[in-house]
Amino acid sequence: MTVLGVDPGITHLGLGVVREEGKTFHFLHAEVVKTRADEPAPARVGRLYERLEETARRYGVEAIAVEEQFFYRQNELAFKVGWAMGAVFLVAHGLGVPVFGYGPMQVKRALVGHGHADKESVARMVARFLSLKEAPREDHATDALAIALTHLFHARLGPKPL
Amino acid sequence: MTVLGVDPGITHLGLGVVREEGKTFHFLHAEVVKTRADEPAPARVGRLYERLEETARRYGVEAIAVEEQFFYRQNELAFKVGWAMGAVFLVAHGLGVPVFGYGPMQVKRALVGHGHADKESVARMVARFLSLKEAPREDHATDALAIALTHLFHARLGPKPL
Ligand SMILES: [Mg+2]
Repeated sequence: MTVLGVDPGITHLGLGVVREEGKTFHFLHAEVVKTRADEPAPARVGRLYERLEETARRYGVEAIAVEEQFFYRQNELAFKVGWAMGAVFLVAHGLGVPVFGYGPMQVKRALVGHGHADKESVARMVARFLSLKEAPREDHATDALAIALTHLFHARLGPKPL
Repeated sequence: MTVLGVDPGITHLGLGVVREEGKTFHFLHAEVVKTRADEPAPARVGRLYERLEETARRYGVEAIAVEEQFFYRQNELAFKVGWAMGAVFLVAHGLGVPVFGYGPMQVKRALVGHGHADKESVARMVARFLSLKEAPREDHATDALAIALTHLFHARLGPKPL
């Protein structure tokens, strides 16, 4: 099973692809797609869509897992993360792939064992599960891999897609 | 100039197409696209995308105008309106068409002359500008036409696209 993890955002969108084979997890890809506030919004969302779509297609992704924040400090932030989510859902729709959402606490619990783990502990566990020397340098890429792993840990429990 | 007005939302998305020729405004189309909360999110956003895209293409739309709320009662609402905005931006990106945003006060001011007009006054002016007996029955369709008209009233001022 191959999963695309997404840490959604409009200025930074983290992508991470993990494949589970038997009992091992393979790191396939991680990147952070960046857009600038001075670019037209259609071009920004367009680039997110294109990178998501190309990545999902290239690795034959069977599920997409996204980090869902339930509280945003600002409405405007929630709104703009929503733009990125629109792109995620349209890629999923086009490829016929389900999307699953996990909150930050669920991610920490799945990787470290408790919901209040710090970023460093999560990054260490991402590296360990994927047999990497260290987690990617960019936080949002590590976050995306953590979300993909979270879905793989939950997949047998039959989570409900968004 | 042909404009697609959009009242964005995930359960109800209003679409309205208006063409300006010389000094007259022609009503071309209005509809409300509906999705249900029990449908998978990718299918919901997919349907919005498809209706937006088909409508923009059919009428040779040259600009898209959306109503922008700046305050939402809830983060979750802002987030989900964001999903619909993602679809709007991707349609615009695909067709190479700019997107313009107008707040509710700007729409009321453009149509009625002041920012605190009630819904009925806005609907009456939509019908009048478009030479319709009455505005569409569905509020979100009327809102979408009002937004399209607002853009036509502002277009000569060279508004900045999103
Ligand atoms: Mg992150």
